[in-house]
Amino acid sequence: GIAELDLERGHRRGYPEAVYCEGKTPEQVGVIAAAVGDRGVRTLFTRATSAHAKAVLAALPDAEYAATARLLAWPAEPPEPTGGTVLVLAAGTSDLPVAEEALLTARHLGRRAELVVDVGVAGLHRVLGRLEQLRAARAIIVAAGMDGALPSVVAGLVSAPVVAVPTSVGYGAAFEGLAPLLTMLNSCAPGVAVVNIDNGYGAGHMAAQIAAPATSP
Amino acid sequence: GIAELDLERGHRRGYPEAVYCEGKTPEQVGVIAAAVGDRGVRTLFTRATSAHAKAVLAALPDAEYAATARLLAWPAEPPEPTGGTVLVLAAGTSDLPVAEEALLTARHLGRRAELVVDVGVAGLHRVLGRLEQLRAARAIIVAAGMDGALPSVVAGLVSAPVVAVPTSVGYGAAFEGLAPLLTMLNSCAPGVAVVNIDNGYGAGHMAAQIAAPATSP
Amino acid sequence: GIAELDLERGHRRGYPEAVYCEGKTPEQVGVIAAAVGDRGVRTLFTRATSAHAKAVLAALPDAEYAATARLLAWPAEPPEPTGGTVLVLAAGTSDLPVAEEALLTARHLGRRAELVVDVGVAGLHRVLGRLEQLRAARAIIVAAGMDGALPSVVAGLVSAPVVAVPTSVGYGAAFEGLAPLLTMLNSCAPGVAVVNIDNGYGAGHMAAQIAAPATSP
Amino acid sequence: GIAELDLERGHRRGYPEAVYCEGKTPEQVGVIAAAVGDRGVRTLFTRATSAHAKAVLAALPDAEYAATARLLAWPAEPPEPTGGTVLVLAAGTSDLPVAEEALLTARHLGRRAELVVDVGVAGLHRVLGRLEQLRAARAIIVAAGMDGALPSVVAGLVSAPVVAVPTSVGYGAAFEGLAPLLTMLNSCAPGVAVVNIDNGYGAGHMAAQIAAPATSP
Amino acid sequence: GIAELDLERGHRRGYPEAVYCEGKTPEQVGVIAAAVGDRGVRTLFTRATSAHAKAVLAALPDAEYAATARLLAWPAEPPEPTGGTVLVLAAGTSDLPVAEEALLTARHLGRRAELVVDVGVAGLHRVLGRLEQLRAARAIIVAAGMDGALPSVVAGLVSAPVVAVPTSVGYGAAFEGLAPLLTMLNSCAPGVAVVNIDNGYGAGHMAAQIAAPATSP
Amino acid sequence: GIAELDLERGHRRGYPEAVYCEGKTPEQVGVIAAAVGDRGVRTLFTRATSAHAKAVLAALPDAEYAATARLLAWPAEPPEPTGGTVLVLAAGTSDLPVAEEALLTARHLGRRAELVVDVGVAGLHRVLGRLEQLRAARAIIVAAGMDGALPSVVAGLVSAPVVAVPTSVGYGAAFEGLAPLLTMLNSCAPGVAVVNIDNGYGAGHMAAQIAAPATSP
Amino acid sequence: GIAELDLERGHRRGYPEAVYCEGKTPEQVGVIAAAVGDRGVRTLFTRATSAHAKAVLAALPDAEYAATARLLAWPAEPPEPTGGTVLVLAAGTSDLPVAEEALLTARHLGRRAELVVDVGVAGLHRVLGRLEQLRAARAIIVAAGMDGALPSVVAGLVSAPVVAVPTSVGYGAAFEGLAPLLTMLNSCAPGVAVVNIDNGYGAGHMAAQIAAPATSP
Amino acid sequence: GIAELDLERGHRRGYPEAVYCEGKTPEQVGVIAAAVGDRGVRTLFTRATSAHAKAVLAALPDAEYAATARLLAWPAEPPEPTGGTVLVLAAGTSDLPVAEEALLTARHLGRRAELVVDVGVAGLHRVLGRLEQLRAARAIIVAAGMDGALPSVVAGLVSAPVVAVPTSVGYGAAFEGLAPLLTMLNSCAPGVAVVNIDNGYGAGHMAAQIAAPATSP
Ligand SMILES: Nc1ncnc2c1ncn2[C@@H]1O[C@H](COP(=O)(O)O)[C@@H](O)[C@H]1O
Ligand SMILES: Nc1ncnc2c1ncn2[C@@H]1O[C@H](COP(=O)(O)O)[C@@H](O)[C@H]1O
Ligand SMILES: Nc1ncnc2c1ncn2[C@@H]1O[C@H](COP(=O)(O)O)[C@@H](O)[C@H]1O
Ligand SMILES: Nc1ncnc2c1ncn2[C@@H]1O[C@H](COP(=O)(O)O)[C@@H](O)[C@H]1O
Ligand SMILES: [Mg+2]
Ligand SMILES: [Mg+2]
Ligand SMILES: [Mg+2]
Ligand SMILES: [Mg+2]
Ligand SMILES: [Mg+2]
Ligand SMILES: [Mg+2]
Ligand SMILES: [Mg+2]
Ligand SMILES: [Mg+2]
Repeated sequence: GIAELDLERGHRRGYPEAVYCEGKTPEQVGVIAAAVGDRGVRTLFTRATSAHAKAVLAALPDAEYAATARLLAWPAEPPEPTGGTVLVLAAGTSDLPVAEEALLTARHLGRRAELVVDVGVAGLHRVLGRLEQLRAARAIIVAAGMDGALPSVVAGLVSAPVVAVPTSVGYGAAFEGLAPLLTMLNSCAPGVAVVNIDNGYGAGHMAAQIAAPATSP
Repeated sequence: GIAELDLERGHRRGYPEAVYCEGKTPEQVGVIAAAVGDRGVRTLFTRATSAHAKAVLAALPDAEYAATARLLAWPAEPPEPTGGTVLVLAAGTSDLPVAEEALLTARHLGRRAELVVDVGVAGLHRVLGRLEQLRAARAIIVAAGMDGALPSVVAGLVSAPVVAVPTSVGYGAAFEGLAPLLTMLNSCAPGVAVVNIDNGYGAGHMAAQIAAPATSP
Repeated sequence: GIAELDLERGHRRGYPEAVYCEGKTPEQVGVIAAAVGDRGVRTLFTRATSAHAKAVLAALPDAEYAATARLLAWPAEPPEPTGGTVLVLAAGTSDLPVAEEALLTARHLGRRAELVVDVGVAGLHRVLGRLEQLRAARAIIVAAGMDGALPSVVAGLVSAPVVAVPTSVGYGAAFEGLAPLLTMLNSCAPGVAVVNIDNGYGAGHMAAQIAAPATSP
Repeated sequence: GIAELDLERGHRRGYPEAVYCEGKTPEQVGVIAAAVGDRGVRTLFTRATSAHAKAVLAALPDAEYAATARLLAWPAEPPEPTGGTVLVLAAGTSDLPVAEEALLTARHLGRRAELVVDVGVAGLHRVLGRLEQLRAARAIIVAAGMDGALPSVVAGLVSAPVVAVPTSVGYGAAFEGLAPLLTMLNSCAPGVAVVNIDNGYGAGHMAAQIAAPATSP
Repeated sequence: GIAELDLERGHRRGYPEAVYCEGKTPEQVGVIAAAVGDRGVRTLFTRATSAHAKAVLAALPDAEYAATARLLAWPAEPPEPTGGTVLVLAAGTSDLPVAEEALLTARHLGRRAELVVDVGVAGLHRVLGRLEQLRAARAIIVAAGMDGALPSVVAGLVSAPVVAVPTSVGYGAAFEGLAPLLTMLNSCAPGVAVVNIDNGYGAGHMAAQIAAPATSP
Repeated sequence: GIAELDLERGHRRGYPEAVYCEGKTPEQVGVIAAAVGDRGVRTLFTRATSAHAKAVLAALPDAEYAATARLLAWPAEPPEPTGGTVLVLAAGTSDLPVAEEALLTARHLGRRAELVVDVGVAGLHRVLGRLEQLRAARAIIVAAGMDGALPSVVAGLVSAPVVAVPTSVGYGAAFEGLAPLLTMLNSCAPGVAVVNIDNGYGAGHMAAQIAAPATSP
Repeated sequence: GIAELDLERGHRRGYPEAVYCEGKTPEQVGVIAAAVGDRGVRTLFTRATSAHAKAVLAALPDAEYAATARLLAWPAEPPEPTGGTVLVLAAGTSDLPVAEEALLTARHLGRRAELVVDVGVAGLHRVLGRLEQLRAARAIIVAAGMDGALPSVVAGLVSAPVVAVPTSVGYGAAFEGLAPLLTMLNSCAPGVAVVNIDNGYGAGHMAAQIAAPATSP
Repeated sequence: GIAELDLERGHRRGYPEAVYCEGKTPEQVGVIAAAVGDRGVRTLFTRATSAHAKAVLAALPDAEYAATARLLAWPAEPPEPTGGTVLVLAAGTSDLPVAEEALLTARHLGRRAELVVDVGVAGLHRVLGRLEQLRAARAIIVAAGMDGALPSVVAGLVSAPVVAVPTSVGYGAAFEGLAPLLTMLNSCAPGVAVVNIDNGYGAGHMAAQIAAPATSP
């Protein structure tokens, strides 16, 4: 077979399997989606193009495709939220696709999640004006490209852990996200951990685990 | 003055200030330690040489220096632990200094913390034989150099979030920790977030925040 | 002339010449294919687009094009297998093109070869469930992208040498295969040697040489 | 000869020549200092060790050595200040050597210059509490290592141009100053330009030119 | 909302907000342009494709699109110039887009600005023949790709500060602008500070601030 | 104007000006070509697409376009050859475009030049069989991608200097020509100097200068 | 405990455990050596300084320390050789430490092994004069620094697989072994696989596995 | 044996063998020197420490050690010069060791050679004042660190080929010579070819070959 789905992941880890669509043909993804339907286990499909989406929807008509986030979820409806709140901040509008991928992932993993966009440090009053919302969250995701400075600033203001996700927004010496990646790894404020460039899925997953209810899993 | 300590960090964030000793002379660190004593706020001193330690202990005789971890804590005694357990794994014996820095940081930030050493993936039975301990933790720190493969393996087995800390253990194409850093950022198992190379302090801080009691801070 | 084929490679090395198609026009590849036909020596054409394939098939109608592997073989039929078995593992479905290039190369160089797909370390039971098959192989090829952790795990379980081939599967800090390349070079389990990113041909060639019969060549 | 001093730099550019001491023996620097004394032109000696300093002071006894900044100035006394004020910010105490090199350079090039230390973004109130001082400067230098986030924050608050100087403070993925260098080049707040890692001399020179009196030179 | 414009930037910093169009859809940019029109604050739109331009012009018909510079300005007319002159040098014709972006930015921020093209160091007489024009400027921008050598040469001839902007002009070991970036950061002539690769906007902004009238802002 | 041609280069250096077409529009190149025609000075146009070629040929109908080499020469006919012979070696057929650019450049700069293709070190007999031709050359250009090993081998066999030109032929860890570039810079055989990746023009220019007649220029 | 030795490696893999001494204190290595003695399992200690050696020899007096190779073996005597011959080539005398580490490892893993030094490609006759010896080997290790060209040349001449080990011999753009590493990964001759820079242990291990007797393990 | 000297290099290439001393013990170099004496062939010893020098001088008392250049020559006296003149330029005093290594190499390979120090582009009049000397040379070597801009400027002024040697002079983003290396590879003036960072020996060798008499070798 072309794939050996990790379908017991739900039992082992408490979170659903996710199918990484890049590098797979729509046909392959369609075959996997059919297997998912057969087994009936909650599954996400990440980094999916509209061609991938079409193939999944043919096999799982009640799945839902979030085009900006490039994410397919089956079933479409997230589980009832438990645990703490996940807050997703996007430094700029261009970081929206990654931020939405994180937001939806956290929701499909069972958390309440909120999104705030365009609060970069060039206009500091925007983030400082939201201190209350920041301090109410159990986990905070910060997506930022270019200088990637926002996670350091946010982490310095709160007690919740910050999951930083560098984005490939920027050009030149941003080097496709390397610059904000390094910034975030070197945050002068402790309480920041980093996922891969543009990895909204990973950030949402990590934040959902952090904000899980105490008894969970 | 030479320093403007962030002494209200305890109030703002719920965790103590930490003084980064590298690049500071022992004299400067001694002056800072005296100020810490005057203000009476719990403080860590990281990446401290024995010369730094001597200067701190002169100003704060009841501080404690953990030489392997290069960490000074004042007061020496960590607070009474609350929240969940932090488990620290070191892939090899050479990762011990970083793992101990993480362990002690988590303890001084108020968590119960345990350490397991030399459970790298080259002998997989070692980590597989500890599944129960792994699954009892609220947050897991994994320190690994060379191929940095251990966090992917661990994250695939548990529901708790994994804080991965690449170490500079290795040579040649390990590039002072770059190799395990990239490995960890690209973990094929979700639920891994990464801190800076050799940053045991940052890993311990993040894990302590994750494992904080629900009402905290 | 535009090319000076190394046609005596078969005599000198015991393995056929291979034509690298990238950077050559279909016309140039067609001219080379005609020369191959004239000389009648077994030849592979690697990294061939369908346009390259068309040009080769015009000159050598009995060649065979494996589109996923981007490989053309002439003659289409591999030699009768001798020596030990080559086992090819692909960590994920997205690694399939590289794994198939390795598989077919090993076969056209005279080995028995098998393929197992989607046994990445995020779900460790998948590879652990195949210990017998792993231990029956004389040489093992492991293709993996992202964290590239699978070769370390496999090498730790077997006595056969592992040829690791990093793939460009992944994004962001995978840096087009650099991340798994470094992981594999730093394998904490000895018995791993590495070929170029996406170089299924090189991996298959190396494994075929390792698994050659004792008297060969 | 071993050196061909650019002694007419004062006439051509309006600023003194500087001798870069690294890679020169104390003997060579001593010979150059003697030539400087003969010609009687104001000169700086940068990145000077105490051995270099000794050689210069032997030839120019009325020079002054600032050991932290590794800078020698001859004559010791800076010119009477003209133009606007240069403000130098150091994100942390460890950035002090670079910040002082910048401060002294600006003064020896004829500007009024002030220094503020340890106002990194991990404790944002420290820089926000100095808005008035920030807005009174004609040019601001910001020295920062690790995440290098301070220049973005400062530039977003003022109208004066910011000269950012990344420092090699930090470890691991700070990569000897590469991380803050990239951060600063990608500042999301415009009005930031960057000099070489640890180049306090270059930052001070640039800022002195920016803050020069309108009629100068 | 998708954006939270920093509209008070004019009051806080004395310079207009700029919208970075890359990574935003034309629809998003159109929505932002409408908000700009509602608030009536001077705004630039940078790195805008013609699709972005169309969306902006639909909302702000009196904006102006400079296609080569990929810059939209609203209102189209720059303010009456004050302060000193900004001189923009382009090393080669291929650097023109970046140089024009810098030129227009400086003008829309209120400076008099001039452009000189194709005066690279391979034919040194071209820049040496313009000494008078160079020395009349209050701030000089130098855009160069390939070896990026022009800023060092220019800075050695004048007293005004040089804002160097590396361009991605070149190929091979130019590494998309990395080579001239490093050259400029290592200028052996002091008085050079650097902005991001291809960042004409940033260079123009910085130069406008440098050349601002003494009382400004 | 958009360009300031270095037309006196012929007098100053003895070699014609060359117009780098990348990053210029066909219109801009057409304007430059017209200026060239007006001044009547021998000129090359490098890295020209067919659109550039069309624009040049409209202005200079007697120019000649070598499509593989992406080079336009005006006048089409090279000067009568003088000096020694330039020998161009291409390691593989895929290196042909770069090798031809070098060959034609050397000819248009006045040298006799020969080309030998596909003599890489994987089949060493191919280069060893040409020792006589190698030893007859006054300057040797070696174009190679992938491992870039050919220049070391050639330099070890001859007394003439070797100009090595790395090509972007290869994939994965060839990193667009970085691998052969480093190989060539580290040649264990002395007598190798290196030009930019894919810079056939630069290699041909350098070799033509080396092989110039003793009295020239 | 500080270490959890993989003592069953001999049973699982057929090859002994190896202790990586770098990053361990001599005390820690001494404790491990004592445990090795207690269990009585054949063990290697790699990258051992003389201080490490002293600690091991105190616990295991009949171990042997090869100072050039930085390798300790216990017991001192290798097993009786079986399987094919491993041939180790060192391109230059400076590669000797790595080559000897490979040689001894292969012997202690049960192979017959030979060493040839200083046969780099700058004087090609040296390797060409040893064709017979090359062709008699079942596995060939090639250690080379600088341009790393030797493995490509050797692989093109033989049918046995080549294990290439880049060394940190060289300077400047050799970048501590990066240059030969890339060269070897891009070998234009197939049949080359690569281990980490300076990893003589890994090369010897891999070659010993390749040359194992058919019935082994 | 530990070395297999390429003693017939003189016959094959016309230039002497050179022994690279780094990575060799003084004992090994002494053994090689004795062999050189036995065979009586002209030899250079490069990158030699004073310990290496002592060992060579013990075996070859009439050799000469140039400490700054770290070069030993035997015999001490260079051959009678033939061919054209080699001119060596050092951008700064700190580049002297590399420049002298180049100078002495060219002389010991049989050329007339001259040295000019401290003519960097920060004070352009210094190099422009030497146009006559520049134009009299048959080959020009330019050693420069930091921005590495001098070769571009020099090449634009002369018809002779320029051998550029980047030096590790500089700090921070000079990255141990990477910055000037990239600058030189991207020279906007053709007629520049580059050798390894700090490779004065290679530059001198290449220049000697370029300036060889027409009938040579
Ligand atoms: N967008 C993503 N980024 C990182 N990891 C992912 C992503 N999507 C899925 N994964 C993980 O990658 C593993 C391998 O994916 P697959 O190739 O589909 O088997 C899955 O089991 C997921 O845990
Ligand atoms: N070992 C460490 N690694 C990373 N960050 C640290 C470390 N130690 C302290 N820090 C943080 O760095 C900030 C700046 O340190 P300092 O230079 O002491 O003001 C402190 O406020 C800490 O939050
Ligand atoms: N610390 C420094 N960093 C960067 N450039 C410098 C420094 N000190 C001096 N320079 C410049 O480097 C040039 C070369 O220095 P020198 O090698 O002394 O001739 C001088 O003319 C200065 O303009
Ligand atoms: N293909 C090329 N590679 C490297 N340099 C070139 C090339 N073509 C032209 N040049 C040089 O680049 C300089 C700048 O080109 P231009 O932008 O046309 O003024 C020219 O004067 C040439 O000397
Ligand atoms: Mg915004
Ligand atoms: Mg171990
Ligand atoms: Mg899978
Ligand atoms: Mg501080
Ligand atoms: Mg031009
Ligand atoms: Mg070929
Ligand atoms: Mg040798
Ligand atoms: Mg100087």
